[in-house]
Amino acid sequence: MDLATLIGIVVAFGVIIGSIALGGSAGIFINVPSLIIVVGGTFAVTLMQVSLKQFLGSFKVAMKAFMNKVSDPEVLIDEAVELADTARKEGLLALEGRKISDPFLQDGIRMCIDGHASDIIYKMLSKEINLELERQKTGAKMFKAIGDSAPAMGMIGTLIGLVQMLSNMSDPKSIGPAMAVALLTTLYGAVIANAVALPIAEKLNGLSSAETLNKKLILESISAIQEGTNPRILKQMLVAYLPEEKRNNNKKK
Amino acid sequence: MDLATLIGIVVAFGVIIGSIALGGSAGIFINVPSLIIVVGGTFAVTLMQVSLKQFLGSFKVAMKAFMNKVSDPEVLIDEAVELADTARKEGLLALEGRKISDPFLQDGIRMCIDGHASDIIYKMLSKEINLELERQKTGAKMFKAIGDSAPAMGMIGTLIGLVQMLSNMSDPKSIGPAMAVALLTTLYGAVIANAVALPIAEKLNGLSSAETLNKKLILESISAIQEGTNPRILKQMLVAYLPEEKRNNNKKK
Amino acid sequence: MDLATLIGIVVAFGVIIGSIALGGSAGIFINVPSLIIVVGGTFAVTLMQVSLKQFLGSFKVAMKAFMNKVSDPEVLIDEAVELADTARKEGLLALEGRKISDPFLQDGIRMCIDGHASDIIYKMLSKEINLELERQKTGAKMFKAIGDSAPAMGMIGTLIGLVQMLSNMSDPKSIGPAMAVALLTTLYGAVIANAVALPIAEKLNGLSSAETLNKKLILESISAIQEGTNPRILKQMLVAYLPEEKRNNNKKK
Amino acid sequence: MDLATLIGIVVAFGVIIGSIALGGSAGIFINVPSLIIVVGGTFAVTLMQVSLKQFLGSFKVAMKAFMNKVSDPEVLIDEAVELADTARKEGLLALEGRKISDPFLQDGIRMCIDGHASDIIYKMLSKEINLELERQKTGAKMFKAIGDSAPAMGMIGTLIGLVQMLSNMSDPKSIGPAMAVALLTTLYGAVIANAVALPIAEKLNGLSSAETLNKKLILESISAIQEGTNPRILKQMLVAYLPEEKRNNNKKK
Amino acid sequence: MDLATLIGIVVAFGVIIGSIALGGSAGIFINVPSLIIVVGGTFAVTLMQVSLKQFLGSFKVAMKAFMNKVSDPEVLIDEAVELADTARKEGLLALEGRKISDPFLQDGIRMCIDGHASDIIYKMLSKEINLELERQKTGAKMFKAIGDSAPAMGMIGTLIGLVQMLSNMSDPKSIGPAMAVALLTTLYGAVIANAVALPIAEKLNGLSSAETLNKKLILESISAIQEGTNPRILKQMLVAYLPEEKRNNNKKK
Repeated sequence: MDLATLIGIVVAFGVIIGSIALGGSAGIFINVPSLIIVVGGTFAVTLMQVSLKQFLGSFKVAMKAFMNKVSDPEVLIDEAVELADTARKEGLLALEGRKISDPFLQDGIRMCIDGHASDIIYKMLSKEINLELERQKTGAKMFKAIGDSAPAMGMIGTLIGLVQMLSNMSDPKSIGPAMAVALLTTLYGAVIANAVALPIAEKLNGLSSAETLNKKLILESISAIQEGTNPRILKQMLVAYLPEEKRNNNKKK
Repeated sequence: MDLATLIGIVVAFGVIIGSIALGGSAGIFINVPSLIIVVGGTFAVTLMQVSLKQFLGSFKVAMKAFMNKVSDPEVLIDEAVELADTARKEGLLALEGRKISDPFLQDGIRMCIDGHASDIIYKMLSKEINLELERQKTGAKMFKAIGDSAPAMGMIGTLIGLVQMLSNMSDPKSIGPAMAVALLTTLYGAVIANAVALPIAEKLNGLSSAETLNKKLILESISAIQEGTNPRILKQMLVAYLPEEKRNNNKKK
Repeated sequence: MDLATLIGIVVAFGVIIGSIALGGSAGIFINVPSLIIVVGGTFAVTLMQVSLKQFLGSFKVAMKAFMNKVSDPEVLIDEAVELADTARKEGLLALEGRKISDPFLQDGIRMCIDGHASDIIYKMLSKEINLELERQKTGAKMFKAIGDSAPAMGMIGTLIGLVQMLSNMSDPKSIGPAMAVALLTTLYGAVIANAVALPIAEKLNGLSSAETLNKKLILESISAIQEGTNPRILKQMLVAYLPEEKRNNNKKK
Repeated sequence: MDLATLIGIVVAFGVIIGSIALGGSAGIFINVPSLIIVVGGTFAVTLMQVSLKQFLGSFKVAMKAFMNKVSDPEVLIDEAVELADTARKEGLLALEGRKISDPFLQDGIRMCIDGHASDIIYKMLSKEINLELERQKTGAKMFKAIGDSAPAMGMIGTLIGLVQMLSNMSDPKSIGPAMAVALLTTLYGAVIANAVALPIAEKLNGLSSAETLNKKLILESISAIQEGTNPRILKQMLVAYLPEEKRNNNKKK
Repeated sequence: MDLATLIGIVVAFGVIIGSIALGGSAGIFINVPSLIIVVGGTFAVTLMQVSLKQFLGSFKVAMKAFMNKVSDPEVLIDEAVELADTARKEGLLALEGRKISDPFLQDGIRMCIDGHASDIIYKMLSKEINLELERQKTGAKMFKAIGDSAPAMGMIGTLIGLVQMLSNMSDPKSIGPAMAVALLTTLYGAVIANAVALPIAEKLNGLSSAETLNKKLILESISAIQEGTNPRILKQMLVAYLPEEKRNNNKKK
């Protein structure tokens, strides 16, 4: 589990809140109606773009960004090479019942054991990869939608505040505080978009790319295992999935 | 029918109107000339980009965003598996007269019964999918055009108001209210774009993707049915169209 | 001929001018030096991006946006089906001298009569479609360039005005009117971009897509006619080019 | 040679300078430190993105935008048809020593004379086209980078000026002129980007597209010449590279 | 090693700092809380989008932008031609133990010596190119993320400062300096984005393109060497990777 997203959001809010506290009167930064128009408006506008099910599922998707569970490609390579070794020495059926950590790799191996033709396995797993990628993009897109709507709702809130302030300027002393309140919605919108929604969307996209790459590595491994490729050659083929520096470590092992 | 878009637009406007009402004098937010320049201008500029027929058809397209009628892929899979079962046991002709819920699936099955070659059916249905996707994109693009024009017309309105105000500043008391009125067009433009047009455009795009995915599922089913694929294998193939969690439920059945 | 673009531009300018007139002193909105910097600058900057020939040809291209002459796909389908019927009953040569409304369809039929091989006809017409699409994109791109330059020149004009005003603020009364004049270039730029150039660019792109789709329909028809396809099947194939609702009307006929 | 870019830049600067001169005190628009931060900063930031060689070569690339030397496709078609005629009547070797205006066409013809296989010639020339296109894109990208950096450096300069002005407001009379100076960098940035760099980038892209199209025309001609295609048919094939109106002129000849 | 990026960043900061120093009181431009919110916030938000490992590795990636070590294609061509010459005269095995400057070329030659089939070598090296390109894009993307976050955090800081200032305007004299401080975060954000992060991201992308092109050149060379292509013809093939002017020099040699 990678803590980067959690650390990032805690530090980001720490810095923002610290900078507010430093100014003394932190209370002026909390305004319930402003919060309602930005948060409520953003959620409402995002809800318009999706189905109820997708909307309610978004919290679960967001959790995924905080709990980075993408398998390490090095581990996958080692596991695939071991499987290839067993399959070569004792036949594909020897892999039956074997404990495999990655569910996608397990699915593929099970298909091999079931005796499906290699081109059918390849086609089915490829389709699985593409469709899963599509589903993950939908999750990231919802956070992108939140990140696009929040500043817009913030601006709408500020415009409402400005119109109210400008149409009633009898008391010059009230202008400053009224404008401060009007600007709060813009601030809320900017924080929600830039310190919450857009980074989560980006993170989900990144996770999704890493997972897809892992799945392509697995797909290649499965084809090789089924064809009875030499495990040494398989390792040489898969090493391209690692960056230069990790590759050297891997060779030493 | 999914109510997300309807709930979303009601809540969004509720939040905006509530926030205006809270300020007391809601009347200052209604200005007929400002409304005419933003709404009229936006419609005029959008009309420039399309044909009269497309423009008048846009209300019907918008209704589609509110009445989400995309078939559930689980239901489609069950139906396709049943059809495959019948076709395998009693032949393709046994599907004649069978009630099929999805019109695209029905068209495909009818083509199979009519005895067209499988590659011709595949080509015709694929073309149908692509052309329908193209048509749906045109609908979404019109709402995108509205969403792009509304803030521009809002800015034009505000600039006109500012020029009028600035060129006649004899009475300092009138500056505030005059500027409030000038800002109204920007507010109208922002609301039309961000709380109406752009979310509808996004929703239409989402619906269109979901429909296209369903049609690809159907296309795959039809090819399998025509080839007399084992219904159990067909189910295994189609399950990739479902997210992980639904897949498990589906297996239990 | 579709009047949408013409009606749109008239209404858009009507709304803008009406909103100016409502404010009383419409005269302040006309400032010749401001007009020269925005209009002249925009044209100059656009001219930099193209050749003289393209620039001078742009007015002709703009006229195209106002005179929508894209053939109705229904009419094309009917004509293609008729031609297929004749070709099937009396041979391809019977189409010689036949009056054909669409020039692209006519070119294709002439090639068939001339006895070219079907794959050569397909390749030549496909290339023709792609190259024509490329040429039309160039036209739309020039209006996009105008739409991008106009607000930039408007901003440059406003900055010049502001610098002049700010560096000479001896008379406080002159500040308002000076700033009003400075804002005029921004207003001109916004109107040229959003109510003229960008919608025309969008319209040209839309026309171009519709024409390309028609040409693909024709390409498919010509291949079918040359192969002597059954007119009933050709109609079934081409009907995919129509939206659902038109398709039903077409079936009833 | 097409003078559009030269005329365009002269008129654009004429309009801007004229509009400044009209205001009287043109001197206030020249501020050496402001010029240094915008021009120097923009060049420095652009230099960061490329290699020294690319940076120094950019002036040569810019000259290309002003000296439009793209061959006229009509001339190329006539030349190709003549070559095809000679090759058909007297054999490919008769083209040896023949003066050919376009270097790319000459290269291709030389390859034919050297007796390379047609698929190798096709592959080598295609690669040449793609790699040259890639190189030209790099040139245009540098001017795009200048056009993106200049407004950013302008904004940085204005922010520096504003901070200096705001932190020292003891003399109210100095506020106006100080702000005028602060705005100058924004103005410089906007002029460099919108009246120089971005139009040149766009022009280079346009030239590059036109050249690539010409090269595709030549590639097609060379294949046809090598295969001994009938010159009349070659002309019919190449005419698709011309717009409708030029095509008619070409037919009459 | 190309110094462009190093020179660029030094000049950019020199110009910015010089322009600040010119204004006299450079001290007002340093504000530690403002620095913390922009720098800390930007790093935190960027950290949210990646894994800890990627984040910590970013400094190493940034160094790459400053130490341009992309091989010169001319040198690669000369080396490849020499290798082809040896391989043709003395056989592939004669290349064993030969010192080769480029590691990717060396890997490919080793594969040839090991006797792998040419299509397998081609496939493995192509995959290596694509995966390496993907990894390099991830590095550039992180600097793009920094460049997108910094202005956003700058704006958030300015909004916080404005709200604090507006809600407490009892002392008119403090307004100017308070606003100056509020603007500092916007300035910091603009400098970080436009003079550091975005140019580095662009540079990394450029390096990555140049490296990929070199690798494609090597891939082509290796295929040719394995097939025993004539070195003179290989040179002719590879020369397309050089711009026109270098090509002539190369021919003279």
